[in-house]
Amino acid sequence: MINLILCGGSGTRLWPLSRKYLPKQFVKIFDGESLFQKTVKRNMHLCDELFIISGENQYFLAVDQLEELDILKNKKVRFFLESEGRNTAPAIALSCFDMDPQETVLVCPSDHIVSDLDIYEQAVARAAELAEEENLVTFGISPSYPETGYGYIQAKGEDVRAFKEKPDAATAQKYLKSGDYLWNSGMFCFKSSTILKAMAKHSKDIFEASENAYNNRSIIGENQFKIKKKDMQSIPAESIDYAVMERTDNVKVVYGEFGWNDVGSFKSLFDLSEKDIVNNAVLNLQTEKVLKPVVINARDNLIINNKRQIAVIGEDNLVVVDTDDALLIANKSESQKVKEIVNQLKERGSELAEIHKTVIRPWGSYAILEEGPLYKIKKITVKAGKRLSLQKHFHRNEHWVVVSGTAKVTLDDEVFLLRQNESTFIKMGAEHRLENPGNIELVIIESQVGEYTGEDDIVRIEDDFKRNE
Amino acid sequence: MINLILCGGSGTRLWPLSRKYLPKQFVKIFDGESLFQKTVKRNMHLCDELFIISGENQYFLAVDQLEELDILKNKKVRFFLESEGRNTAPAIALSCFDMDPQETVLVCPSDHIVSDLDIYEQAVARAAELAEEENLVTFGISPSYPETGYGYIQAKGEDVRAFKEKPDAATAQKYLKSGDYLWNSGMFCFKSSTILKAMAKHSKDIFEASENAYNNRSIIGENQFKIKKKDMQSIPAESIDYAVMERTDNVKVVYGEFGWNDVGSFKSLFDLSEKDIVNNAVLNLQTEKVLKPVVINARDNLIINNKRQIAVIGEDNLVVVDTDDALLIANKSESQKVKEIVNQLKERGSELAEIHKTVIRPWGSYAILEEGPLYKIKKITVKAGKRLSLQKHFHRNEHWVVVSGTAKVTLDDEVFLLRQNESTFIKMGAEHRLENPGNIELVIIESQVGEYTGEDDIVRIEDDFKRNE
Repeated sequence: MINLILCGGSGTRLWPLSRKYLPKQFVKIFDGESLFQKTVKRNMHLCDELFIISGENQYFLAVDQLEELDILKNKKVRFFLESEGRNTAPAIALSCFDMDPQETVLVCPSDHIVSDLDIYEQAVARAAELAEEENLVTFGISPSYPETGYGYIQAKGEDVRAFKEKPDAATAQKYLKSGDYLWNSGMFCFKSSTILKAMAKHSKDIFEASENAYNNRSIIGENQFKIKKKDMQSIPAESIDYAVMERTDNVKVVYGEFGWNDVGSFKSLFDLSEKDIVNNAVLNLQTEKVLKPVVINARDNLIINNKRQIAVIGEDNLVVVDTDDALLIANKSESQKVKEIVNQLKERGSELAEIHKTVIRPWGSYAILEEGPLYKIKKITVKAGKRLSLQKHFHRNEHWVVVSGTAKVTLDDEVFLLRQNESTFIKMGAEHRLENPGNIELVIIESQVGEYTGEDDIVRIEDDFKRNE
Repeated sequence: MINLILCGGSGTRLWPLSRKYLPKQFVKIFDGESLFQKTVKRNMHLCDELFIISGENQYFLAVDQLEELDILKNKKVRFFLESEGRNTAPAIALSCFDMDPQETVLVCPSDHIVSDLDIYEQAVARAAELAEEENLVTFGISPSYPETGYGYIQAKGEDVRAFKEKPDAATAQKYLKSGDYLWNSGMFCFKSSTILKAMAKHSKDIFEASENAYNNRSIIGENQFKIKKKDMQSIPAESIDYAVMERTDNVKVVYGEFGWNDVGSFKSLFDLSEKDIVNNAVLNLQTEKVLKPVVINARDNLIINNKRQIAVIGEDNLVVVDTDDALLIANKSESQKVKEIVNQLKERGSELAEIHKTVIRPWGSYAILEEGPLYKIKKITVKAGKRLSLQKHFHRNEHWVVVSGTAKVTLDDEVFLLRQNESTFIKMGAEHRLENPGNIELVIIESQVGEYTGEDDIVRIEDDFKRNE
């Protein structure tokens, strides 16, 4: 069985924790693990192979987090990089074109929580049986309250009567009362050939456009392909539910009583989290030097704790999210309005809707520590064996001090090692490259001095990650 | 007339804005000015001379802020540095010993707001007349609500019937109703000889101990003296109200209907601040690159805005105080409980109760930008003409990059200039000194690398500020 993991997402629901370039599933808020990592671990011994669908600006996050779990060495992992998201039907079709038609596929969103793994495994095993019999299998969750944000499946045993779009409050209440309706979890199981056959029949346009796009794919590495933007845009954007599931009669549903939660809001994050004696939940973004919040006369709060000392007095039902560059304070019952905040920030042209202060790159990460009119100070972390592009700047000089690890520096015609506690100077206009030739992380402090220190004053002469092309 | 300004204060009431080493009166929250600066400006044309009483770890804050107002060149300013606070009676006595006995003294706390300056000047003029007639003059404020946190003056015209300690709620209500009681503002006016005579008569022990302490004072610079800690401790700690005012019959009161506010809590800060259309008040700690908070369905909030993007959803009556290293979220009506937060932090041994991330020193300031197990990155700002101590470290190397201004560096036997965009390396054990010989601010980025980067690994060989003695 292949575990197909959907890693899209706009990163708005848990802003400022999640952002466009670090969507919800990659944020490490569960004891140092991300929801993506939890998803991978949950399916690891059920599936022989991993197949990751991700945006081209996020896939290296998946690579990083798989490396942390030591998966890449032990399992075959394929990556399909979407140059543009077109919803689940094209994503699933394009992935299935890349598989043996007889292969069974377990489709999982990467940002859900499952708390009862034994029951989960039983459900997946049953789904695999049904998939083997040429069924398209969905996973339905017994609703515990009248949620209006999910689609519903009307079921009778394992048979599906109908799919229902997100209902209004009254309808959701009716669904809950009747007992025949289940939440549509967004998980699926089917044979590759079954879903493609159904799509060819019921959504011919998506099937054909996807087939063309797949045949025109770019191979960008071993087990990595990408669909060109023009080709992606030629495929109708549609969900797999609408394009296929609702239109066929070989659909089955497996009951998923395995403690499912889609962590769709800070409210659900609170519900999932451990509480203290007065029902406050504290999640720590840092693993070292954690400063415990001081709380006086305050209960039922969710506090996402970062580097600073937080103090709360006389407030209940708050969501407090402290990040390096943005702070959210919301009433828990209105925390879904965080999307409006993101929209307002976008309108202002603020990049805080999209990136974090620490920007994760394929080679490592950087953070701006301080900025003045004529200077910018960055902390640059380079992963073992990785290197930045060969580059030059027209408007700034750079001073590098190695504070941890060892750097290999290319500076015009010279190549030399820079060890911990050594420094070098990159003059304006000089071609240079920073590389970590070692086995441990390299950390340098870069002091940029110049009239202009914007990110766009960079000429890439050569780049391992093809960003100069 | 001499303006005697009391600059004590523990910095707890407006934590984390104010802290022990940056008490309330020095925080610049009123359009870029501090309450101390506002106090100085309010009295500048009423008084010929300034006399500042301050703790020895805070006096340079007063010096800095006076320099910003260009006062030091134009007026005589004396400084009395308390090595330990002993309340107002000893502070006033010790200052008056340093003055001509015939001098009229206007005593002002440094952390109050006065909004109607015309009426203020009339009140001070009347107080000066009464002081000339050998009276001890207090300033009474008509109470607008039954405050239990102030002392009261029972008055009949300009005559004082009695002083009353902070009342309980019922008594405060009675005072308010009767109309005979005024808030005791803590401002006074008298001739130096009048107050000393009264103190010699009514609080002989304080008078004599203060006289001895004054005679044993250390002259630490032109117009600067300090009382030794042992001598300070020998003086009974008492307020001027209790030690003198309540015991004499030559006390008068001037009505102070000049928009007085002691900014004793975030609630009063909110009341004083300008509000937007939904009654939110935003005060900015930064003057450049101000990120306007995004607010959805939230009113009556006080937001102290710093460097980060703040977003508030669905909350009213909050106090949000964002600083570099601490964040307070409080219900406005319970914001006085911030003192408990400070106490809890002290119990934890947290230095956040005492210092800010940017630590202000006599020569400038420093801030820790980043810390790792084997390194620490600091931004160091040196004021024009100032220098740090000649020093050395046993456990760390330092890399200095000048990002703004020009530095004069002493490194063992060498002395050289380091210009913008130049760097140098201070090897472990080397004697070194950093100086700003220029007329504009010097900013350097210091990357410390070593096994131990604590503030106590510093051997001061020579120091302009006598910290090696």
